[in-house]
Amino acid sequence: MANLHLDLIRQALAEDGAEADVTTLCTIPMEQQTQANIIARQAGVIAGLTVAVATFRELDQRVSVETLLEDGAVVEPGQVLAHISGSARSVLSAERVALNFLGHLSGIATLTAQCVRALEGTKARILDTRKTTPGLRSLEKEAVRLGGGQNHRFNLSDGVLIKDNHIKAAGGISQAISLARRHAPHLLKIEVECETLIEVQKALEAEADVILLDNMPVYTVRNAVEFIRSTSPKVLIEASGCIGTNPITLAAVAATGVDFISLGAITHSAPQFDVSLEFD
Amino acid sequence: MANLHLDLIRQALAEDGAEADVTTLCTIPMEQQTQANIIARQAGVIAGLTVAVATFRELDQRVSVETLLEDGAVVEPGQVLAHISGSARSVLSAERVALNFLGHLSGIATLTAQCVRALEGTKARILDTRKTTPGLRSLEKEAVRLGGGQNHRFNLSDGVLIKDNHIKAAGGISQAISLARRHAPHLLKIEVECETLIEVQKALEAEADVILLDNMPVYTVRNAVEFIRSTSPKVLIEASGCIGTNPITLAAVAATGVDFISLGAITHSAPQFDVSLEFD
Amino acid sequence: MANLHLDLIRQALAEDGAEADVTTLCTIPMEQQTQANIIARQAGVIAGLTVAVATFRELDQRVSVETLLEDGAVVEPGQVLAHISGSARSVLSAERVALNFLGHLSGIATLTAQCVRALEGTKARILDTRKTTPGLRSLEKEAVRLGGGQNHRFNLSDGVLIKDNHIKAAGGISQAISLARRHAPHLLKIEVECETLIEVQKALEAEADVILLDNMPVYTVRNAVEFIRSTSPKVLIEASGCIGTNPITLAAVAATGVDFISLGAITHSAPQFDVSLEFD
Amino acid sequence: MANLHLDLIRQALAEDGAEADVTTLCTIPMEQQTQANIIARQAGVIAGLTVAVATFRELDQRVSVETLLEDGAVVEPGQVLAHISGSARSVLSAERVALNFLGHLSGIATLTAQCVRALEGTKARILDTRKTTPGLRSLEKEAVRLGGGQNHRFNLSDGVLIKDNHIKAAGGISQAISLARRHAPHLLKIEVECETLIEVQKALEAEADVILLDNMPVYTVRNAVEFIRSTSPKVLIEASGCIGTNPITLAAVAATGVDFISLGAITHSAPQFDVSLEFD
Amino acid sequence: MANLHLDLIRQALAEDGAEADVTTLCTIPMEQQTQANIIARQAGVIAGLTVAVATFRELDQRVSVETLLEDGAVVEPGQVLAHISGSARSVLSAERVALNFLGHLSGIATLTAQCVRALEGTKARILDTRKTTPGLRSLEKEAVRLGGGQNHRFNLSDGVLIKDNHIKAAGGISQAISLARRHAPHLLKIEVECETLIEVQKALEAEADVILLDNMPVYTVRNAVEFIRSTSPKVLIEASGCIGTNPITLAAVAATGVDFISLGAITHSAPQFDVSLEFD
Amino acid sequence: MANLHLDLIRQALAEDGAEADVTTLCTIPMEQQTQANIIARQAGVIAGLTVAVATFRELDQRVSVETLLEDGAVVEPGQVLAHISGSARSVLSAERVALNFLGHLSGIATLTAQCVRALEGTKARILDTRKTTPGLRSLEKEAVRLGGGQNHRFNLSDGVLIKDNHIKAAGGISQAISLARRHAPHLLKIEVECETLIEVQKALEAEADVILLDNMPVYTVRNAVEFIRSTSPKVLIEASGCIGTNPITLAAVAATGVDFISLGAITHSAPQFDVSLEFD
Repeated sequence: MANLHLDLIRQALAEDGAEADVTTLCTIPMEQQTQANIIARQAGVIAGLTVAVATFRELDQRVSVETLLEDGAVVEPGQVLAHISGSARSVLSAERVALNFLGHLSGIATLTAQCVRALEGTKARILDTRKTTPGLRSLEKEAVRLGGGQNHRFNLSDGVLIKDNHIKAAGGISQAISLARRHAPHLLKIEVECETLIEVQKALEAEADVILLDNMPVYTVRNAVEFIRSTSPKVLIEASGCIGTNPITLAAVAATGVDFISLGAITHSAPQFDVSLEFD
Repeated sequence: MANLHLDLIRQALAEDGAEADVTTLCTIPMEQQTQANIIARQAGVIAGLTVAVATFRELDQRVSVETLLEDGAVVEPGQVLAHISGSARSVLSAERVALNFLGHLSGIATLTAQCVRALEGTKARILDTRKTTPGLRSLEKEAVRLGGGQNHRFNLSDGVLIKDNHIKAAGGISQAISLARRHAPHLLKIEVECETLIEVQKALEAEADVILLDNMPVYTVRNAVEFIRSTSPKVLIEASGCIGTNPITLAAVAATGVDFISLGAITHSAPQFDVSLEFD
Repeated sequence: MANLHLDLIRQALAEDGAEADVTTLCTIPMEQQTQANIIARQAGVIAGLTVAVATFRELDQRVSVETLLEDGAVVEPGQVLAHISGSARSVLSAERVALNFLGHLSGIATLTAQCVRALEGTKARILDTRKTTPGLRSLEKEAVRLGGGQNHRFNLSDGVLIKDNHIKAAGGISQAISLARRHAPHLLKIEVECETLIEVQKALEAEADVILLDNMPVYTVRNAVEFIRSTSPKVLIEASGCIGTNPITLAAVAATGVDFISLGAITHSAPQFDVSLEFD
Repeated sequence: MANLHLDLIRQALAEDGAEADVTTLCTIPMEQQTQANIIARQAGVIAGLTVAVATFRELDQRVSVETLLEDGAVVEPGQVLAHISGSARSVLSAERVALNFLGHLSGIATLTAQCVRALEGTKARILDTRKTTPGLRSLEKEAVRLGGGQNHRFNLSDGVLIKDNHIKAAGGISQAISLARRHAPHLLKIEVECETLIEVQKALEAEADVILLDNMPVYTVRNAVEFIRSTSPKVLIEASGCIGTNPITLAAVAATGVDFISLGAITHSAPQFDVSLEFD
Repeated sequence: MANLHLDLIRQALAEDGAEADVTTLCTIPMEQQTQANIIARQAGVIAGLTVAVATFRELDQRVSVETLLEDGAVVEPGQVLAHISGSARSVLSAERVALNFLGHLSGIATLTAQCVRALEGTKARILDTRKTTPGLRSLEKEAVRLGGGQNHRFNLSDGVLIKDNHIKAAGGISQAISLARRHAPHLLKIEVECETLIEVQKALEAEADVILLDNMPVYTVRNAVEFIRSTSPKVLIEASGCIGTNPITLAAVAATGVDFISLGAITHSAPQFDVSLEFD
Repeated sequence: MANLHLDLIRQALAEDGAEADVTTLCTIPMEQQTQANIIARQAGVIAGLTVAVATFRELDQRVSVETLLEDGAVVEPGQVLAHISGSARSVLSAERVALNFLGHLSGIATLTAQCVRALEGTKARILDTRKTTPGLRSLEKEAVRLGGGQNHRFNLSDGVLIKDNHIKAAGGISQAISLARRHAPHLLKIEVECETLIEVQKALEAEADVILLDNMPVYTVRNAVEFIRSTSPKVLIEASGCIGTNPITLAAVAATGVDFISLGAITHSAPQFDVSLEFD
């Protein structure tokens, strides 16, 4: 679906001055051809390869790229992701933009996969959040899926998630849930953010479908889970806030029996995946 | 200059479905007004506040925002950055996009400032790179400046930087520098990426203006600096690659006497700055 | 939120050649001022007035518009919606685009309100669909709300609605529901389109949250509703297909006890609302 | 010329969340291929098939579409318009947007053709107006041509059409025509909107090229036509306003001898053409 | 109507790197304010001042600009067009883009005015053509009007102009005119390009409304005019091709009695008007 | 790299109403095919052929274009640049936009080549400026290169060029250079605009890298060059202002020994290159 991102790709090439790459224009003859490889410099999960390929070809349709694997593949350091051949000028002028996409998105997929691995043996699943980079949400959410995570809301129309500010503005948890129940689109469940056990209790009484345990210490999460399971066994439970991507913390939270752990960090703070382009 | 980013702001609001915020539409009456604060949840340097303000006002021009400090300010945890007042619906529907800008850009400014602090007492300065998020370069480069860093090239037309792939394609360091000297725009200096002392020597012989010491261990950097200073005292020296943002490593590299340390990590791997919006 | 539609407004003005309105340029002096009224020519519900106002002001910021009512108001034929004053040229050159928005969106709100009225005394509610005009969805969905209808999915990320083609591709109703249950975002309910009572039965066995009764005659709808209520009282029921906007048919379908009736016609086939602009 | 509409197509796919089609992503395996048909569900004239095809291919270039007829073809209920084959996911995720274009534009072509048929045996021709959907004018005007209608002005630079508000602002019919005659582009004729026979007489005296008889009862139209033919045989006559798409009314107006009948309804109030996509 | 050009203005500021004006950022303190004047450096007619003002304000809304005259004014060398006050950085960073608009468009208005002056004492009027700069047509056509010229077609929907290639493809002049007469929008006259007297004769026989005498020497133009006036006194006559902007040639062509002289050069080859910005 | 200009091409086609070319739609049958040639009508250097080809193909992908030479070729009057074959309608409707690109850009390349030729036998080189048409900079700068010129700054981030207004705002030449030296990106040299010998002296004392001699008579340029060469032999010298494109003036300025002559006129005042499209 890289076509849908052509505007972003073009904007990124323009932003990088790909048509005025003075180093390349000065040092490389117009007719020179090249063979090059895109190579992973670390282990991880690949995302954004499709967009990277489209970047080279948007700058110069005569560049050809042969991909050796697909987005979602697990790679080792040194592994070649793609062969590129074509005008040396075009390859050099598109390189940085293509690698910026690939490194950013593979970084997200790789960090997601690490978090998913930390939950092995539990039923908890990793969710992303709406804390994504402006303009890149659909690519970043796809990277999360490629890393084994599951997507929370794509945007504000995808679910009712009543947070503390909604509760304040609506005049209380019960009031907010009751309004949502009456007016929300009929395909959406109602999730309520709770910071204390008392709030959890109120949310259950108002028949929330999903409880978000926010910023609680692990033992409070455990208590909350036990309370919810015993009183409302069909209610789903999500933990969030202050958890981070440390595998030990993740495993501890997962062990409480929550259904989901949502992590802003996998999109907003993932370190770039190290990848390079080498001429033969 | 937030006007120049209105397209990005509008796209981010559309991407987040800000016009179809079902939670808010269901739970908050249309006429309800609110007072809220944007609050730092950690220490650091603020960037993106101007864009965040523009985001609220792009969704609803009647929302008013009073900023208590400007981009570039150093803040403590708990410090209030801005007061917001207006339609509760509008504030809630724009909140996430505004905070995504603010958190991402303040994260970059804050990490940059940490790296700059690590160099205190040396003459070395922190540079950014072109490893930025597609679509956000000018905002990210501004965040680096706000954090005390200096900008390397904004884009490919801003400098001649001859890398290993250029050298391969041009047929050697001397050949590449000589071509650049003949054809490059007359306001641009010529920088050459070197991975060994032999390459440094060749680049100096061909009269490079700036040497980029790439991926060298600290002791090799020190040798290279001594060699360059002794033979070509006017040449500028930049170190890059494998350095990272650890203060101890940064200080060690700076102690070699380089003029610049360029760090991709301050833009591509900066963790998000923690910031929240609280209703009164 | 008219700001978010400025691109569409500008595009519509360009498409209409508002800068090259030869009739106006030839016949009206540049400095001539005018007073004009926007007047409803039929009874109905107003939508798009905000966008219409923004259209005049986007062409010429010095035009001032005083609205006498807000979007959502019920009007009588002859009722004045707004006073406009400013350059006669600007008012004339923007008139058609402004009225095209206003007439199209008020047409949707008005038809929706008629359908909503037909359901009075039942618990059924009118839903829209994704059968909207390309580029205008959020405005059209807002017009539906203003007319008293409720929004179904804003887009494909807002709910799981398994249709016949999904069932074919997934290999059967049970299989499709089971896959959705496992992989769907946790805030989304699962709705299944059924054309026969057997399909309804299968969908209930697989624990669908919502049943869409598609293209059924009224007596089959009634049988299906009875069956669903008796076996799965918590399941929501939506009727759709071949229903149209005839009040008698709508009332008959509503009388079967369904929760929702979804109508593509309210967005894709609503006749334009008649509205005009008259100079004083 | 579907290329010129790629921005609109991309925007419509984004608006529908085609990249986040949770139902399809959850229930259909990534590698599953499908064969499907686009089928007319009513009789009529097809328009927008080219754009619908471009929609599938914009989402996924590997989808192939074989069209069995061209835009402008007359079809029967049940007739297959195109075979589609490719990724089941891609076909399902693009389906609604493609059909929205096809149904909307074929609805216009079909209603136009019905009106054209009502005029058979007279010399009168059906014209469209500028009452089109914002953003879709060129597609809607093409649909009118495909249905056998003729285009009135594409935009405000295409003709001088002096309406009541121009006459008020210019200070009278004669004054307005005289100004237009002096300043209008030399390839444009001058048309004047008249609501009474007295206005017709004034417009003829001022040598209008075309008379628009607006909102007149049929017998007044007949009188006006007789008067114009007897005094100014070269002047063209257009009837408009309150006519609608009823064939009997249309035939009656045509029988008065007018040259053109312009109908806003064929673009702004055409019911959607019923079309569906069925998997084999 | 500068609002309609905001996208172009923003694009031009981005293209010039106005956010990364390193000279200004390095040498001017952020808080420094300035007073500056925009000054004409030659005599001529001003166009584009409105757009230039919008450029400064799009970069920084706090810059204020007081214009001393309006677009269309005739100026002398040294005349001040506008006072600007605000951030010195903003004024400097927007200067070049603002002056590029102003110099380009005033150049067109000034050259147009010179050509118009050459025709004084004749009835001939200067027309522009569709030979405009891609993306700037409406601004350039407005500059022509400001210089006293009249606009030919804004675009391809604004008139029927049958050129040699149409005649070849249609199979002859008579055939082409006859087809146009049957199918053209009813508000458009039919103009035919003729290169010989024989073609003129054929075009008149086929009842063309306007004759374009293309690439003829002056004496042939004179003959053609006499022939047309004697046989078809209502037909309009336009001369074009190889005429250029030399006042003596223009006067000679005008003296033949043509109604219009169309000149591509006034838009495609107008030298820039000299204008500068000076700090107080 | 024509792909990067697709948005501009599409916008230019829309601006010209290429989808509503009434002349062509009325006179040419839909199925008619044609063969045509693009022919130079003067001698010069070709630029923009790639973009012109992309224009035809963007309107109709089935049009095929065979180019007989590449951008940068030197041509004689009457020389055929390309063969076109395909739908006669598509060729005619895209013709004007394609030729507008080709004529504008070849005009720039041709004027540049004339100026370059005037400098033969000297070491001086022709530079362009930032005085380009809004929206077309990268195409115009490429045309300069094709004509043998060299590019000055692409945009404001590409070099430090301290002009009179910067000097005023910074408080003097020495102050401005010293600030630039401290803060400018390390790959950029510092150029200073000087209008008198005293300013030259100050700039040299402050160690400017490049001196721009602005608006000086030739004998002052000569004096300045002698002074600079004798005191600061490594400093580059650029002459600008009031020079124009007259070959004799250019040769005289070049004979003073300057390194560069920068000319706004080659981009902002180049007359259009004459080119036409002829059907076989």
